[in-house]
Amino acid sequence: MLSKRLLFFYFLFLTFDFAVNAQTATWIWYPGDYEVWLGNKMQNRRTERGSFLPPFWKLDNHYVLIDFHKVFTVPVAEEVEVHVEGTYNLKIDGAAVTGFPKKITMPAGVHKLSLKVFNQSSVPAIYIKGKTVVSDSSWLLTFEDKEWIDQSGKVSDQSGTTWLKAGSWNFNSPKDLPSKIQLPTVVQRAVKVTKKPQSMLADFGRESFGFIRLHGLKGKGKVGIYYGESPEEALSTDSCETLDNLVVNEVKKRDTVMELSKAFRYVNIQSDPGMTIDSVSMLYEYADVKERGGFRCSDEEMNRIYDVAKYTLHLNTREFFIDGIKRDRWIWSGDANQSYLMNYYLYFDNPTVERTILALRGKDPVTSHINTIMDYTFYWFLGIYDYYLYSGETRFIKQFYPRMQSLMEYCLSRRNKNGMMEGLAGDWVFIDWAEGLSKKGEVSFEQLLLARSLEAMAISAKIASDAEGALRYEKLAAELKSKIFATYWNEKKQALVHSRVDGVPTDSLVTRYANMFAIFFNYLTESQKQGVKTNVLLNNNVPKITTPYMRFYELEALCAMGEQSYVLKEMKDYWGGMLKLGATSFWEEYNPSKSGREHLAMYGRNYGKSLCHAWGASPIYLLGKYYLGVQPLTPGYATYLVEPQLGGLQWMEGDVPTPTGKISVYASTSQLKVKSNAGTGTLRFTSKSTPTGSAAIKSIGNNRYELQLDKGVQYAITYAAQ
Amino acid sequence: MLSKRLLFFYFLFLTFDFAVNAQTATWIWYPGDYEVWLGNKMQNRRTERGSFLPPFWKLDNHYVLIDFHKVFTVPVAEEVEVHVEGTYNLKIDGAAVTGFPKKITMPAGVHKLSLKVFNQSSVPAIYIKGKTVVSDSSWLLTFEDKEWIDQSGKVSDQSGTTWLKAGSWNFNSPKDLPSKIQLPTVVQRAVKVTKKPQSMLADFGRESFGFIRLHGLKGKGKVGIYYGESPEEALSTDSCETLDNLVVNEVKKRDTVMELSKAFRYVNIQSDPGMTIDSVSMLYEYADVKERGGFRCSDEEMNRIYDVAKYTLHLNTREFFIDGIKRDRWIWSGDANQSYLMNYYLYFDNPTVERTILALRGKDPVTSHINTIMDYTFYWFLGIYDYYLYSGETRFIKQFYPRMQSLMEYCLSRRNKNGMMEGLAGDWVFIDWAEGLSKKGEVSFEQLLLARSLEAMAISAKIASDAEGALRYEKLAAELKSKIFATYWNEKKQALVHSRVDGVPTDSLVTRYANMFAIFFNYLTESQKQGVKTNVLLNNNVPKITTPYMRFYELEALCAMGEQSYVLKEMKDYWGGMLKLGATSFWEEYNPSKSGREHLAMYGRNYGKSLCHAWGASPIYLLGKYYLGVQPLTPGYATYLVEPQLGGLQWMEGDVPTPTGKISVYASTSQLKVKSNAGTGTLRFTSKSTPTGSAAIKSIGNNRYELQLDKGVQYAITYAAQ
Repeated sequence: MLSKRLLFFYFLFLTFDFAVNAQTATWIWYPGDYEVWLGNKMQNRRTERGSFLPPFWKLDNHYVLIDFHKVFTVPVAEEVEVHVEGTYNLKIDGAAVTGFPKKITMPAGVHKLSLKVFNQSSVPAIYIKGKTVVSDSSWLLTFEDKEWIDQSGKVSDQSGTTWLKAGSWNFNSPKDLPSKIQLPTVVQRAVKVTKKPQSMLADFGRESFGFIRLHGLKGKGKVGIYYGESPEEALSTDSCETLDNLVVNEVKKRDTVMELSKAFRYVNIQSDPGMTIDSVSMLYEYADVKERGGFRCSDEEMNRIYDVAKYTLHLNTREFFIDGIKRDRWIWSGDANQSYLMNYYLYFDNPTVERTILALRGKDPVTSHINTIMDYTFYWFLGIYDYYLYSGETRFIKQFYPRMQSLMEYCLSRRNKNGMMEGLAGDWVFIDWAEGLSKKGEVSFEQLLLARSLEAMAISAKIASDAEGALRYEKLAAELKSKIFATYWNEKKQALVHSRVDGVPTDSLVTRYANMFAIFFNYLTESQKQGVKTNVLLNNNVPKITTPYMRFYELEALCAMGEQSYVLKEMKDYWGGMLKLGATSFWEEYNPSKSGREHLAMYGRNYGKSLCHAWGASPIYLLGKYYLGVQPLTPGYATYLVEPQLGGLQWMEGDVPTPTGKISVYASTSQLKVKSNAGTGTLRFTSKSTPTGSAAIKSIGNNRYELQLDKGVQYAITYAAQ
Repeated sequence: MLSKRLLFFYFLFLTFDFAVNAQTATWIWYPGDYEVWLGNKMQNRRTERGSFLPPFWKLDNHYVLIDFHKVFTVPVAEEVEVHVEGTYNLKIDGAAVTGFPKKITMPAGVHKLSLKVFNQSSVPAIYIKGKTVVSDSSWLLTFEDKEWIDQSGKVSDQSGTTWLKAGSWNFNSPKDLPSKIQLPTVVQRAVKVTKKPQSMLADFGRESFGFIRLHGLKGKGKVGIYYGESPEEALSTDSCETLDNLVVNEVKKRDTVMELSKAFRYVNIQSDPGMTIDSVSMLYEYADVKERGGFRCSDEEMNRIYDVAKYTLHLNTREFFIDGIKRDRWIWSGDANQSYLMNYYLYFDNPTVERTILALRGKDPVTSHINTIMDYTFYWFLGIYDYYLYSGETRFIKQFYPRMQSLMEYCLSRRNKNGMMEGLAGDWVFIDWAEGLSKKGEVSFEQLLLARSLEAMAISAKIASDAEGALRYEKLAAELKSKIFATYWNEKKQALVHSRVDGVPTDSLVTRYANMFAIFFNYLTESQKQGVKTNVLLNNNVPKITTPYMRFYELEALCAMGEQSYVLKEMKDYWGGMLKLGATSFWEEYNPSKSGREHLAMYGRNYGKSLCHAWGASPIYLLGKYYLGVQPLTPGYATYLVEPQLGGLQWMEGDVPTPTGKISVYASTSQLKVKSNAGTGTLRFTSKSTPTGSAAIKSIGNNRYELQLDKGVQYAITYAAQ
């Protein structure tokens, strides 16, 4: 059985196929291909102590030959500019224009313009600009046109060809070549520089990312640049994670910019005797995403946590949502899934979500799990599920449903005889970084994620008009959910147990993972929820979580059960704990029981840990969704909920972005203010006294009240928080 | 039931896995990837009247990130050169060497050398050269290493990774970069130049291919270069198939070479008034393949046919076996299949066969037939079958069996409810260029090719140790063959009928295609063969074949039935007919009933026809296999047959190459001489008198004799031809 929310999606999806702007000329390409190409470029920039360190999974490649076309109705013959990345031909109504035309005249009337572009090294792309004839996402593309000609010259039809709508981004000028993409940079200076003979330690004041620039470099010899997220790391020339080695022979002073951007707060520059360097600066590199959400409250530590979380997410939001800026700089599906959710409360930047989903997926054939990790494949499906819920976009699912299908078939083909998935050769069962965590057998957490993935497939199938597929996935999801509870639910422990090994459930081992996901997946009955809360989430005997990654979900589960006060304390302890240790961005892992340089080590290396990890930024999501209390109930915020929960704060205020504008919320213990530019909302709150401010407030019993929120109306309610 | 010959393969394949030379350093890459990349490069050089004309099928792409490794036993520590196309890291025993080392020291002992290379624009490739440590085809490669590291630094195993042996060719020096491949060229001068004011018509004496060079070009204006395989075409500036347009502004005389190579015999150069051009030459571009076969006989016209056929094949043997040099210059599977067979009697160049097979196949997923043509998919399987038979190579099949499987699964999934294949949306059912030829329904010819493809799969499955697959394919082949005869064999007509449309066999339509293939596939009983010969092959009421393409198979079928005398006349008529019309290479199509410029037209265009088409060169094959009479009986010429058939000639002599050296044959009406460097042969001949020359000659009755041929022995037999 699908939840009511899911069923509701089915009825709504038809109305939410947002129209695509067909006015502005932009560079276009085969959908998904630029993302694959750019993902390759980005993920092959990782270095470790001067050595190239590429990903260890299959990287796909773009189609090298693409056919583009669109039929235009041209009122008056017009001049049209043609810009192409690649070797191409251009046809008007099927007749080739000789050579490689840069300008053509489109005659008046209904005419088909088509281009066929070959490009091996980057993605075939076109930019067409006339008055009515422009390149945009309404063009149709294929990687195999199947058009052939017979002996007598007759051209045969293309009935076997699949045409997809073009992909695009923000390359809106002819000079803005997609293959030359470069994120913007801005100059920043060190806030403190400690100079010694032949060395210089620069502190840029906080965690940062960009290209180091040496000013006035002169002399002959070697220069070593040692990057550190901590001063200890920068000073540890033999075990810092990243470095640059230059061989220099400059008679005159010269400025030099490093080729690769790096993450650092501190830079230790060592040069050979006789060499001089005047100063150091950096080109801070960033993604130009717009902040549309915000949060402020009566607790200054929480405000600081929110700000550092925002900065952490910003640093990790680049061409794609990446894991961390120092080390991998790769696109990891589990990490990205959290960034998507944070994004919905800060940037609401759909293009970055889509790019990340596409780069992760790559192309057929599927030969391994995403990032080789079984759970990461499932998060990929969950990410699409959430994207649809928050954005209401159906175009994306319609376009890429076949890639969803083939990935799901890969999963289904790897189920064991019980219909469950366990790690096969080459599969990494990750779950979390947690010492001694067993990955053996049929891990309950993995089955739970598979069930949710199947639900995402069922919804997507409907959107893609695959009714048969929808029924099949619904059935598979329902069967698996029954099996999960029959297998793992331990009535005595009131919890899902961790795994089943050799046919025997691990009754002696309960972990938090499956239990907390079951809560916010809404897979538990009310009494099961309470059982899990008491016996797992609030039970110190169940192994604790030490990564912000899984704390994200743990705290979400507690919030979903109304434990905002408890979670606020946890956030202040955990994220506040990092701040007290001087963090200027949030970490990959934080274990309060460690001390000193122990905090910097990971993976058996002294400075292996990332001190700026996207998954460290989860307060953005928790504060937006569970304190301001704003969340979509149906896709694209057609309907939504605002349920402010102060959780012990005196007041809070903030904005949550939606596809049609922001929802602004203010809440104190005596006043609630909401204004929204989204669909139709429900304000829900608890008040000890009868609230005033709108005649439409309805009591729903038990001191609970609701008010319907209409677009563009400012609501102000006087009430008494409990 | 498989034929005896096929069963015999099964027992032999184990002994024929030729060792690969592991001494010479060479550039290596992921097997199949360079071929895909080079195929893209080659096939995107087609132009039509100055416009780019790319293929209309899916082009695949290489893997951009490859892991290479090999474990070496190094007697004494050695210096090793490292050359890489791409960004890379290098590890010795899993430990990274910093940066991008150009030279390393491999320590003595057993050590693993690994490199991981990223390259988006061309194929990741390495060249490693030390004393014992060299890059060659024994290295292991993967496109996904699935090696991950846990929180504590432990590296997890790679058990899920598939490693393949490296691909290579002849790039044996570090400077010989695979990405910079360029076929050799040699200067050639026109044999006759006709000059007029502002124009020049150069005749290069015969069909040719290369880059036109203008000498002493001076002035300001436009130069048009119009290429012609005939003078008519070169002079027809408005309908010649290929041309170059230059815009020139040269104060001093300059030489200019065209960017793209073209096919031509004649070049018409037109320049604007005031411009001057001293002279024209060309850089003839060719593949450096070695001629190892040969044929000479008492008939001078046949010798001329053989020479022009050789030249035709040479021009079309380039980076790959292509269809024709003027127009497409693409790799077409049906065309290539004939080139493979001719190649076995002229060059025996395995690398060109392998490259062509790999470029045609591309990669998974399969989304359409090879070249979009159903029959061309089947020829791909047939090509592998023949390659194994002639070369005895099992390595190729072992390596690429998965690609054979997925292509066959694509075919099997497209069978109709009767288990037969008919054209679905997007499928081109080609068969042959023949006016009015029906492609409707379940065409018998296509089912026959599918049956043979299934047999090729069965053999390959065994070689690839897929016993289950072998049984399945054998069964499918046997079932289909039964079905073919039950459906199409018309006892009254003693022929296979053309098709079955809407469940009804087309009893009124018999064509040559299925019938002639059934003969040399050995699918017919002796009496069926005779029936087909009389009622189809030698029956003028059955529509005639007008392309050298299908004449190849028609004449092969007749030769296989001992009709060498008839076929000799046909060759003299058909190929001799082209020579009489002035051909210097053989054509795409030749219909003796046409005249004058009609011979030049095709595809509704005045000069659309290719006058140098690989499939025109089939006498090479027919003369080697059915006149000299040399053919392998088991893979790689382990056993073979020499059955000379003069077919009316007074004498003939020639060489046929084999994997271990050539087989030389001389035959006159009174003498037979054979010397062979291959395995164990059988000389078979007919003699009116008792032959002399060897005590080992055995009579097999009916004036037929056999003699076992041992390696390296010169045999000379005196006999009396019938």
